[in-house]
Formats: sequence, structure tokens, C-alpha cells
Amino acid sequence: MEQVVVIGGGSFGTAMAVLLARNKSEMQVSLLLRDSSLCDSINNDHINRKYFPRHILPDNIVATIHPEEAFKDSEYCVHAVPVQYSADFLKSISEYVPPSLPFFSVSKGLELSSLEMMSQVIPRALGNQRQPIAVISGPSFSIELMDELPTAMVVASKDKELARAAQQLLASRYLRINTSSDVVGVEIAGALKNVLAIAAGIVEGMNLGNNCMAALVAQGCSEIRWLAEKMGAKATTLAGLSGTGDIMLTCFVNLSRNRSLGVRLGSGESLSDILSSMNQVAEGVPTAGAVIALARKYRVQMPVLTAVARILENELTPKKAVLELMSLPQVEEV
Amino acid sequence: MEQVVVIGGGSFGTAMAVLLARNKSEMQVSLLLRDSSLCDSINNDHINRKYFPRHILPDNIVATIHPEEAFKDSEYCVHAVPVQYSADFLKSISEYVPPSLPFFSVSKGLELSSLEMMSQVIPRALGNQRQPIAVISGPSFSIELMDELPTAMVVASKDKELARAAQQLLASRYLRINTSSDVVGVEIAGALKNVLAIAAGIVEGMNLGNNCMAALVAQGCSEIRWLAEKMGAKATTLAGLSGTGDIMLTCFVNLSRNRSLGVRLGSGESLSDILSSMNQVAEGVPTAGAVIALARKYRVQMPVLTAVARILENELTPKKAVLELMSLPQVEEV
Repeated sequence: MEQVVVIGGGSFGTAMAVLLARNKSEMQVSLLLRDSSLCDSINNDHINRKYFPRHILPDNIVATIHPEEAFKDSEYCVHAVPVQYSADFLKSISEYVPPSLPFFSVSKGLELSSLEMMSQVIPRALGNQRQPIAVISGPSFSIELMDELPTAMVVASKDKELARAAQQLLASRYLRINTSSDVVGVEIAGALKNVLAIAAGIVEGMNLGNNCMAALVAQGCSEIRWLAEKMGAKATTLAGLSGTGDIMLTCFVNLSRNRSLGVRLGSGESLSDILSSMNQVAEGVPTAGAVIALARKYRVQMPVLTAVARILENELTPKKAVLELMSLPQVEEV
Repeated sequence: MEQVVVIGGGSFGTAMAVLLARNKSEMQVSLLLRDSSLCDSINNDHINRKYFPRHILPDNIVATIHPEEAFKDSEYCVHAVPVQYSADFLKSISEYVPPSLPFFSVSKGLELSSLEMMSQVIPRALGNQRQPIAVISGPSFSIELMDELPTAMVVASKDKELARAAQQLLASRYLRINTSSDVVGVEIAGALKNVLAIAAGIVEGMNLGNNCMAALVAQGCSEIRWLAEKMGAKATTLAGLSGTGDIMLTCFVNLSRNRSLGVRLGSGESLSDILSSMNQVAEGVPTAGAVIALARKYRVQMPVLTAVARILENELTPKKAVLELMSLPQVEEV
């Protein structure tokens, strides 16, 4: 029997397990979790109570807390562990991971401690620089994947064959998968859009209007592109599905948790109050810290994205940030 | 006394007149209209009843139906006449237009009969190829300009001095104006985003979800960029404020009339019923027709934008269009 393992039982990991299981009913999808009661409820009731209480999971999803079971006989691993926890988790299970097992990462963000992206974090944490890796990104709320609404994503890998394997595994009549070799471009947009979504939320929380939000998101898109190009990405990747497409979704639609966090910041709540009331990880918060360091390292001016980091650090109020941005010199576009 | 003329008393023309009048209380802003009762109500009550019934217009806006009055002594002309009516209107008033009077066009669209943009339509209609022209575009709902919410726009002209003059006239503490020399890039995005907004509305009307909308808008952005580049535009203009920025606003926010038209199409209403119930012009409808011709002329594949034209022509149902788009080959991004 074919088998794949999905690591991380959050909303996106669950959605990926579901779409893999739906694509091939004869395949076993092992969902590796740390929470044993969630594990039991998935196996007994076929429901992920925490994230999708109203969706029945396919029978061929088997949750487990035992990495040796999950990895044994799996041909692929889908990585959906939150970015900041990934390295520790992977180190703890690395002895069960075959060195030739391909990883498909759907986690979006930059590791704050190293400024690395997932395509760098995973092989480092596994102690195997040759671990095959592809990254998957694009505009995709997990709830809409669960509901089989039409979605398009991008899989990027240096290894074309591997990208095609991921495409074959994931694509379906409601999911289009394009392939790309621009790993940096796909990852950097996926990570930084969460920071920009916080900015968009702040504008909404301050009731500054849609014109202001569009201007800010457009400026943020340019900043992400400037940084990404310096890091070796292609401009067309940033302008495409996993760049502008994902940024638009995350910044303009209310379902994003990073955006929701921004709305609450913009309406005056403190970051600590917001974080303590959230049951999911907002990757934009640690990634904002990484952005300041990257902007400095690559010598890129990023007034919008670095303002988010300064707001999160309490160095700047949202109101002052907007005033600063509106009074930047009016530029000549080039 | 300084004087400027704004031609066209629709929502955007009115908003431009208001922001000019607010910027300089000692300047007279002549608003040239065709509807004499609207003209009287603006002059007597300082309200544009049709578009902004709750906003008081500044005293230094004077409405008139007489072009000779409006143009006499005006130093600039802001053009806000709907694209498809512009040439006829300009021909009818051309005898009053001094050949050195600069035109700042805020009208967005392509003239269906000629496939021309406003920077071409205006000089042709005035019979003066040397009429100074700048075009103004960017993410800007008129109601938010009326409400003094922060907004950023782009003015583009081959003549740098003229672009700077427009910037000086319009910029304020709530309106940033960037300058550009890429007239084609600014105009083509401003025109084609209205077609894409119809597509985004259709997706919403069909309840296909946000993932689908983001994928479709991202694809549409690429199609607009491919065409624009063939027409001589710069990729960075398309990725900027007047490109992606304006597209995001129009496609993701409900205030756009082209998008609203799409929502109604997507939920099954007929185009003729929708058009007969609208009191404003949806430029996306004639522009969609022009897109088919341009795609052919410049040999660009534009599956999303041409699907809109085919839906409007009743050659394709929205449902079939989505099926077609989802079953296009999954591509390798380059």
C-alpha cells in the first residue's frame, strides 16, 4: 500500500492530509501529531475537533503520535509544522527519517533565530543537506481546500522531477498545481506576506479605508520583490500566484489570522493581549523580526514591512507609522 | 484668480473638483456638465445629489453647462468624461479648448471603436496632436477621496514638467502623487482592471471562494502585464500602485461597479437586466470587447480576460468558463 506522512496537525496540515487522502483512497495518509487526545479523536471520530469540527476526514487518514510508525514505509513527507517549532521537532524525530525521503513543505515563514527559510531549515535540522525538498505555496485558505473550492498553488524545487512528483500527488479537479524552480521566490513571498497582512489589518483596524490599504499593500509587494530579487528570486515569481496572488488573498480577505491580529492592533489592543487570546500561530509576528535583519543584511529599504516590526516591538504607534508613510517623499516611479 | 476646469460631473469628476477646490480655496474650479438641473443644484445647494448626496462641496466649485465659460481662463483641464463618450464630447467643445491647455485624464478604459487609450483619444478628438496630456490613475474610490482618507495615485506623462505640475496641483496631506513617464503602463492597467473586476465579481457571484478569486486575479494580473509589455509598458509599472495596487482594490473590494456587475452575472442575471438597472457607467463592459481585439493584435494569450468578453457576449456561461480555466494545462512558471 502506498503511504505518505503529514507532519503537523494544524489547519493546513489537516487540509493537506485530507486532499491527499481524497485523491487516492487506496493510499494511507499518516498524520503525525503531538497531542494524543487530538490523535484519538481523529482516529475514532474522523474529525479534527480543534480546527475543522464540521468536516468528516477520509478513513484513510490515520493519526499517530509515534514518528517511527508514521515514517515507516512513507514515500513522501508533507511538512506543516509551524516554522519556529520546526527545527526542534525535526531534530527530535530525525532518526526515523530516511535520508532520501522527499519533503514537501507548506509552512510559511522565516526562522527568526537563523533568518532561514524552510528549504534551509529542514535539511539543517535533519542533519542531511541532501534531503530532497520542494516548497508549496499560493493563495489557499485551508477551509476552502476542505470544501473542495477551486484553488491553484505552486510547487517549487531545484529538482524538476520532484516538483512534478508533488504536482502528481496533489493536483485534482479542484486543485491546480503549477511547478517552478524558483524556491527562494516562492518561499520569501509566502513568508513576508504574513507581515504585510498585519499591516493591512492595522489599516483596517484604524478605519483608514480601502484606498489606503491598496496603496500600502502595493508598496509592500514592491518591498517584498526588492528583497526577494536581491536574494536571487525572479520578479515573475513575485508577480505570480505564490507572490501577488497569495499577498492579495492574505491582505484583503478576513479569514487570515495575521490580518486579524493587525485589525486588533490597529484598533488599540496590545500585542500580548491579542497573542494570549489566539489558539493558532500568527507566523507574521516572528517573521516581522526577521524582516528587519534581512532588510539590513541585503540593504533594501522596506518602510512598510519594517514599520510592522517596529509596531510589534512597541517602538512605533500605528498612527505615527501611517503619518510617517504618508509623508515619505513622493517618488518618481522607475 | 487661478482657475481649473473639470469636465464630467460623475463621481470621479466631482471628487477631483472637490480635492482641487480644497487644496486652494482661492482657486475657482469650474465643473462642466451637460445636465442643467444637476448644475443648478450644485451651484445652489453645493451638493451633487446624484453621486454624493451627503457631502457639501466647497464654495469655489462653480458648475456650468457652458464650455466657453468653463474653459475661459482655465490653466488646466481635468478630464473625467466616460471613455466611450469622450471623443464626441471633446469634438463638440473643441473650439473652446486652447491648444496649449494641459489635460489631466482620470478616465479609465479603452475606446472600443478605435482600441485607443485616453492619451490618444483626447488629442485626436481635439484635433491637436500636441495637446499636453498626463494621465492619473491608482487605487482610489471617489467616496474615500471625498472623505479625506489617505490615498496614493500616479500621474504619468511623457512631459516630466507636466507630471510635476499635476502632482503640485493635486497632492495634499491625504493624497500622495507619484510621477511616472510610463503612460502606456499606467493607462493599460487602469483600463483592463475593470475587465478583471468583472471576472472577480463572477467568481464571487458563483460562490467559488477566495482561493479561486485570488488565483484568477493573479492570472489576470499576468495577462495584463503580458499585453502591456508588448505595448511598450514597463513591468515595474504593472507591479506598482497603478497596476497591482489598483487591480487589488477593484477586484477585492465591494465598492467597484464593474465588480458588482460581475457578481450579478455570476449569480445568473442577464447583462441587459443588469445594465438597465445601473445609474453609472461600467467601463469594463466595452473595454472587454477591446481586449479581445488587442489580444489578437499583439498575439497575447489572455484566457481570463477574453473569457469575460465571451461571457458578456453570451458565447460562454460563467460555469463553463471556470471549468475551462481550471482545466488549462498546469504550467511551469518561468
